[in-house]
Amino acid sequence: MKKAKKKTNASILIIGNEILSGRTQDLNVSFISNWLNLNSGISISEVRIIPDIEKKIIFNVLDLSKKFKYVFTTGGIGPTHDDITALSISKAFKVKYGFNKKAFSILQNYYGIKNFNEARKKMAKMPTGSKLILNPSSAAPGFKIKNVLCLPGVPSILKSMFPNLKKYLIKGPVTYSKTIRLIAVESRIAHDLDKLQKKYLKKIEIGSYPYFKLGRVGVAVVLRSIDKKIIKKCELEFLRILKNSKIKISIT
Amino acid sequence: MKKAKKKTNASILIIGNEILSGRTQDLNVSFISNWLNLNSGISISEVRIIPDIEKKIIFNVLDLSKKFKYVFTTGGIGPTHDDITALSISKAFKVKYGFNKKAFSILQNYYGIKNFNEARKKMAKMPTGSKLILNPSSAAPGFKIKNVLCLPGVPSILKSMFPNLKKYLIKGPVTYSKTIRLIAVESRIAHDLDKLQKKYLKKIEIGSYPYFKLGRVGVAVVLRSIDKKIIKKCELEFLRILKNSKIKISIT
Repeated sequence: MKKAKKKTNASILIIGNEILSGRTQDLNVSFISNWLNLNSGISISEVRIIPDIEKKIIFNVLDLSKKFKYVFTTGGIGPTHDDITALSISKAFKVKYGFNKKAFSILQNYYGIKNFNEARKKMAKMPTGSKLILNPSSAAPGFKIKNVLCLPGVPSILKSMFPNLKKYLIKGPVTYSKTIRLIAVESRIAHDLDKLQKKYLKKIEIGSYPYFKLGRVGVAVVLRSIDKKIIKKCELEFLRILKNSKIKISIT
Repeated sequence: MKKAKKKTNASILIIGNEILSGRTQDLNVSFISNWLNLNSGISISEVRIIPDIEKKIIFNVLDLSKKFKYVFTTGGIGPTHDDITALSISKAFKVKYGFNKKAFSILQNYYGIKNFNEARKKMAKMPTGSKLILNPSSAAPGFKIKNVLCLPGVPSILKSMFPNLKKYLIKGPVTYSKTIRLIAVESRIAHDLDKLQKKYLKKIEIGSYPYFKLGRVGVAVVLRSIDKKIIKKCELEFLRILKNSKIKISIT
């Protein structure tokens, strides 16, 4: 994996009526974001969830592909009629849609010639010129074309494929984070956090997230930066502020 | 609530670094989609997740507001420095950003004059001309301006506010669905599903979703339509196909 100096931004395109309708809870966004940050120093800057409609897939793949270094798509690469991601992406990039020899051979080996029916063969079809993302759990590979990496929607299969796409990514710096949980309402620390954020502008991203747990009200303050030392410095400063304001830290 | 004849489409704009970074698992998309379909016959056609960056909020609010009948935003309306949704939407629509008298009075009553500090007062600031979405759990109201409805990001608070925004929505027809779970791999039914989808084109949306549970492989086939009778007809036809192909239905 090559190394990039600047932070590398990417987007996720979730293709699936089942997520939009609320029938299925998406779990892939948080997995992909965490995996990319930890393993490749890549940050997700935008996510879109769209239906299985060809013109919507074409529009969004082209739009995100222009705006971001990488686009990760999930969903729509299975054997059924509603799996139209590979065909739509071929149309988006104006390349032929056809059998990938290596994918065909992998699937034929996996199923055996007798059971390798038309629906299963469909999973070997993709945009011409694609590179494969191997699938250790259910064989059917994902693919990479230009800066778009196409993965299945089933979370367990998607997870198993991530180590196999690492080679296609240029590594950026990892973003570190420190979470400090306070026993306080958000508005009590809003003023101090605002001052702190202004002081560390562009060096640290400070987030403030209220939560309710077992009848208690708290705030999780998250410091995020690619520089570990600056996070530590800012954390110590914030702890001093809390001490002066007599705000307690939650140890849970 | 008025009634609309055609299906009414909407979008969700999730504003929050914590969702993009993978730190927090989004739960609002599935809640909002299900609630809207059940209570208002409104379908979500697109979701975007973006960071707390003013120009991104402005661009996406304007873009989605043009494309869809309604835009539901979540996140960024609290008291801290990273809560910039209300200000950004004022800029998007080129209206003033200032105190809403009714919101100010609600919050002052809730906190009491003594505890109504600057950070809390910020939650009464919104685009001029906004209508309030009352908040029965933590007082700070959401707001509606043009076709954009702004809600908080904390799921429990967001949920409590939905009954209060119903009056702003024009009701469309509810989408019904029927799920049939099969003990089979997806590719075994792909051909029949394809034929069935073509027969019921534009009347029913047929989805096919593989799953793995307790070591078994299955497929959930979902029929979705605004016409209950057509779903029943298609279901019976599908059950005949399954019987002929000797595919078993899972009762779990």
